[in-house]
Amino acid sequence: MAAPFWGKLWRAKGSPPFLWIRRGASGNGSRGPDVPGEAQHPASATEGGQKLTRMWQKEGIRNIVLNHPQKRNALSLSMLRSLREDILHDIENTDLRVIIIAGEGPVFSSGHDLKELSHKTGEKHHMEVFKTCAEIMTLLPKLPVPVIAKVNGLATAAGCQLVASCDIAVASEKSKFATPGVNVGLFCSTPAVAVGRSLPRKVALEMLFTGEPMTAQEALLHGLISRVVPEDRLEEETLRIAHKIRESSRAVVALGKATFYKQIEQDIGTAYRVTSQVMVDNLAMTDGQEGIEAFISKRKPSWSHS
Amino acid sequence: MAAPFWGKLWRAKGSPPFLWIRRGASGNGSRGPDVPGEAQHPASATEGGQKLTRMWQKEGIRNIVLNHPQKRNALSLSMLRSLREDILHDIENTDLRVIIIAGEGPVFSSGHDLKELSHKTGEKHHMEVFKTCAEIMTLLPKLPVPVIAKVNGLATAAGCQLVASCDIAVASEKSKFATPGVNVGLFCSTPAVAVGRSLPRKVALEMLFTGEPMTAQEALLHGLISRVVPEDRLEEETLRIAHKIRESSRAVVALGKATFYKQIEQDIGTAYRVTSQVMVDNLAMTDGQEGIEAFISKRKPSWSHS
Amino acid sequence: MAAPFWGKLWRAKGSPPFLWIRRGASGNGSRGPDVPGEAQHPASATEGGQKLTRMWQKEGIRNIVLNHPQKRNALSLSMLRSLREDILHDIENTDLRVIIIAGEGPVFSSGHDLKELSHKTGEKHHMEVFKTCAEIMTLLPKLPVPVIAKVNGLATAAGCQLVASCDIAVASEKSKFATPGVNVGLFCSTPAVAVGRSLPRKVALEMLFTGEPMTAQEALLHGLISRVVPEDRLEEETLRIAHKIRESSRAVVALGKATFYKQIEQDIGTAYRVTSQVMVDNLAMTDGQEGIEAFISKRKPSWSHS
Repeated sequence: MAAPFWGKLWRAKGSPPFLWIRRGASGNGSRGPDVPGEAQHPASATEGGQKLTRMWQKEGIRNIVLNHPQKRNALSLSMLRSLREDILHDIENTDLRVIIIAGEGPVFSSGHDLKELSHKTGEKHHMEVFKTCAEIMTLLPKLPVPVIAKVNGLATAAGCQLVASCDIAVASEKSKFATPGVNVGLFCSTPAVAVGRSLPRKVALEMLFTGEPMTAQEALLHGLISRVVPEDRLEEETLRIAHKIRESSRAVVALGKATFYKQIEQDIGTAYRVTSQVMVDNLAMTDGQEGIEAFISKRKPSWSHS
Repeated sequence: MAAPFWGKLWRAKGSPPFLWIRRGASGNGSRGPDVPGEAQHPASATEGGQKLTRMWQKEGIRNIVLNHPQKRNALSLSMLRSLREDILHDIENTDLRVIIIAGEGPVFSSGHDLKELSHKTGEKHHMEVFKTCAEIMTLLPKLPVPVIAKVNGLATAAGCQLVASCDIAVASEKSKFATPGVNVGLFCSTPAVAVGRSLPRKVALEMLFTGEPMTAQEALLHGLISRVVPEDRLEEETLRIAHKIRESSRAVVALGKATFYKQIEQDIGTAYRVTSQVMVDNLAMTDGQEGIEAFISKRKPSWSHS
Repeated sequence: MAAPFWGKLWRAKGSPPFLWIRRGASGNGSRGPDVPGEAQHPASATEGGQKLTRMWQKEGIRNIVLNHPQKRNALSLSMLRSLREDILHDIENTDLRVIIIAGEGPVFSSGHDLKELSHKTGEKHHMEVFKTCAEIMTLLPKLPVPVIAKVNGLATAAGCQLVASCDIAVASEKSKFATPGVNVGLFCSTPAVAVGRSLPRKVALEMLFTGEPMTAQEALLHGLISRVVPEDRLEEETLRIAHKIRESSRAVVALGKATFYKQIEQDIGTAYRVTSQVMVDNLAMTDGQEGIEAFISKRKPSWSHS
């Protein structure tokens, strides 16, 4: 049973190819002296003229910051679209090697904007919000580069779902995680898809039923995040992981990531058949051959990212 | 793809509707000065005239106590039936908001009564025991209210399975958990269904193969339970969780619980389609609308539990 | 729905019956004064005349040692075949009760031999390596006896996969675990099948994307292994578990192990139907009856291992 060529693998399951359609005027202005950018794009998603996400990319690392602290970085439809745009921007460019998602201010994200979910906005709008949100959450595993959540503060409801949906999550010690929808009569059923697959059943249900927050240490203990550090080391530790990923071949990482998510939902026999073929395909890639040759010759590999 | 209305959701998968058929004479006498009850029912399941479970309900919280300490609260067929009766008693009544299951004495439950499993009782009786037990374990996730195991002591075999099958489990520090069937030539294969879904594979198998007990701290570390407290705070902590759950809308919690167990066995794509629809349905519920309105108006919500 | 008799259960899913075909001359010489063996077999898999695994069995406990420390116990095709042979050797003999797999030297195993995966060896050879490896990993859960990984050092790539594929894993505090294939352009996609099923999603992906090692304590915290001990207690602790397993009926353990892996991939309803029947079958076994009788009579059971 032959596995499909890896390049097709992470586009599978009916997702559209990652063609980023440039909208509006091109702009490359600096977003501030502290965030010098190599590549930037116009913010097409705005709320009252304010950009809801900031994005800059430097030496292969794309930073996306949820940037609406006045509204606790609520995942409004505008915010979700802005986030999706920043994620998909020029995603096929091999210069991009890893994405980091963070939040401006003390709240990573408070989840959906409840004002968008009132009776007035109507069911059609509600469905649009949840569909867009689910699309982003399921998009993350399909991206050809790893996505790291960098959390420094509170992540609740769909904000907690976003953390749970990234490949890797690093959090400062002061961070907290909760699914408090039940307090406002809206059970966190969509966040539960991601949270319930990251935490042991009972821990997830206690969170969902009580709405109470979990500390970063508890989140690490139970598997919701992969690393906890003191706040003053959050940037350094997240970048350390990003730099480590940047040392590898993008093509190999893309194949590995796509294969991981594919096989993890299969039974073990199928998973081994699929991955054994993937290993053979990986070895036949330019970077697969280069890596092995370099190892045997005891030299540093030089990646072509193909 | 439209999701079914939530009210039907937790009755799905072929389970019978939760109609409690009152058997025997009605009684509402106190079960002792320390357990004043709002609602009590006659104990139809007895062994030698002794009631095997105690049940009382107060302000929305139902307490069920396995009450056969002389036999280490063995899950005999009588005990299982008594437990099922107390669980299902008037379950559709919206006054009921959460169930707590505990054990009288130093043993939460020692699992099946081995005397019922001897050669003499016969295969038909054995099957009746396991079927009844499995029915209760699979009933718990289908109930419209959360179920908390309150463990203060040893929980072994089917007793450990009962803990693993509740939605939430709080244990005192002295509690221990084991699946020791292998010691008496009866591998804990039914307990392994619940235990194997709560613990990492290797931890579960070491427990099952050696029969040795795990401490409460280990059980928390590995996800079998959701919380550990000193013995003198067990009651307080369990009630704190129960009270928190009681603050929410029963209808919203019921929808959330049913949806959680439904989606967790689905692939992620299906899970998001189902839960996105559930979120829209949740918002259309009376309590969904009330919760959002109250939040926007910065007032306390007033639930109708519908 | 009747479950198949247990004896057939662990042979299910298309695996061949465990017939060990004796190859080459019979030999029973001691492999050294420190490892007196009851049963030993000729090493048919050699590399340059050197045996790649050592195997000895004493009082029901089979020890298999990856014995190529000069090559960091690389899982070359020869090593894999030698390992498979030692695992399957006389596997149907009821004298065998538990298998312990360890590694000679400071590295448990470094995974595949990269020299075998160069362009020169060719795709056909590559596939043979991965197929043989996957065959062994999926063989372990199907064996009628528990398999314990005893890790004292570094376990990487397919070496980490081997640890993750055993039923139980005990490690010394100094042990480390990594999936560093990405460093040499070969993503650990086959190891990810086992590692991804043992660790929380994010922890597994951070390991796979960075290639960085995890400590034994982290591996325990996250569920990759089931026990960590100081190095000087590794032998004692591993044997303690093995001795505990040896006290039980082999037939009961075999049924329990086969059933565990069968039910864990099923939905809960099916799992309970299958295991309820298995419990009844277990009780009908000679050792099932003996165990219950002995318990009721308050005497030690005497197993026939059937």
